[in-house]
Amino acid sequence: MANPTAAMLVIGDEILSGRTRDSNMYTLAGELTRIGITLAEVRVVADDHAAIVAALRALSASFDHVFTSGGIGPTHDDITADAVADAMGASIGHRADAMALLAAHYDRAGLPFNDARQRMARIPEGAVLIDNPVSTAPGFTLRNLHVMAGVPNIFQAMLASLLPKLTGGAPLLSQSLRVNRGEGEIAGPFGDLAADYPALSMGSYPFLQNGAHGTNLVIRGTDAALLNEAMLKLTRMFG
Amino acid sequence: MANPTAAMLVIGDEILSGRTRDSNMYTLAGELTRIGITLAEVRVVADDHAAIVAALRALSASFDHVFTSGGIGPTHDDITADAVADAMGASIGHRADAMALLAAHYDRAGLPFNDARQRMARIPEGAVLIDNPVSTAPGFTLRNLHVMAGVPNIFQAMLASLLPKLTGGAPLLSQSLRVNRGEGEIAGPFGDLAADYPALSMGSYPFLQNGAHGTNLVIRGTDAALLNEAMLKLTRMFG
Repeated sequence: MANPTAAMLVIGDEILSGRTRDSNMYTLAGELTRIGITLAEVRVVADDHAAIVAALRALSASFDHVFTSGGIGPTHDDITADAVADAMGASIGHRADAMALLAAHYDRAGLPFNDARQRMARIPEGAVLIDNPVSTAPGFTLRNLHVMAGVPNIFQAMLASLLPKLTGGAPLLSQSLRVNRGEGEIAGPFGDLAADYPALSMGSYPFLQNGAHGTNLVIRGTDAALLNEAMLKLTRMFG
Repeated sequence: MANPTAAMLVIGDEILSGRTRDSNMYTLAGELTRIGITLAEVRVVADDHAAIVAALRALSASFDHVFTSGGIGPTHDDITADAVADAMGASIGHRADAMALLAAHYDRAGLPFNDARQRMARIPEGAVLIDNPVSTAPGFTLRNLHVMAGVPNIFQAMLASLLPKLTGGAPLLSQSLRVNRGEGEIAGPFGDLAADYPALSMGSYPFLQNGAHGTNLVIRGTDAALLNEAMLKLTRMFG
């Protein structure tokens, strides 16, 4: 059976303006590969209601899971929860469960639970909260959308709360061989090998080191025996 | 007049599987901001013909420019040029100008100009070549699509060849203020300031340092005088 599919939506002007280097995509890609969910597409959009809604609708209709990062904090540019509600046709308000979590958190910290902080309790009706052990303000799952924070350590913590609840497939395995030859030299036989194994995905990634061309050849797949067999042929070919 | 808009399409299984951390998005975002082209969306798709074609069609219809990275090397998984031709309804073959560049390059290097290397001369009819001072194999511009390599130093070199030929608008300027307060504390007045300056974009980016919450407040815009005015108010508010 094919693995479940996923997309990611990264939300934030700071990524598109080049202020911030996104790292959540790399984090999510590695984790999903490990648990056997195929990340098939990523989109990055600005803090723009219409752009977020359009992307959410397109991705949630096309993939089993959609993971978002960014835009769930207390400031005016945090508009993800409202966009999710709009995209899914859900109502949204200050949810009692999230209000209780946040009220207790700010009480412990001796900080006022003001309007801005209460904004982080705006969660669409029907959503299930995602635990945030770092700073309490929760993420949430609404149908196949998993909405998480953009701050990398909070994104990682929410992902750790969420992933054990999802059903993955066969983990995507990979093996690689480093050869001291340029891509143009290995492309012919490597392409023939790829054609012989349609169930595996083979990629070549060139590098230049001390003025010499080399290539990392990578074979990916979910069938360990088939992967080993192809890898053995690859090693005989170029090893 | 509004600045030209752009999207980026990153092509490659290695990004979506978590093997490689993309850096071309960050490079492009910074360069476009500098020359006044607004990067509005980024997509990442696998080495999959249908997925690449669909993304190219959607993005080229919606934005002034589309920049792609990845999939233009000599191996079987390099399928970007054919996908571009398909998406734009152009024919594709081994172009004489690209063949001449590559033949001279491999002749100098004393390497055979084999089928795989000739594959890098497959360029759609009507495209203009983008110079590659690193490894010769050219990128190309077809209508509003700018097709470049995925290897970061080659992507950067192609971008340096291409950008002086594009007409930008007013550079996106930004100023930031670091405050030693959490987002929840500054959100109210910061949001009011943002509402007073609809021509500027204001964002807040929280951080935790030595156990204390702080926030970087960023104001972006193309009007330097307006930006300075808002920044002065921000500094009075929180400085």
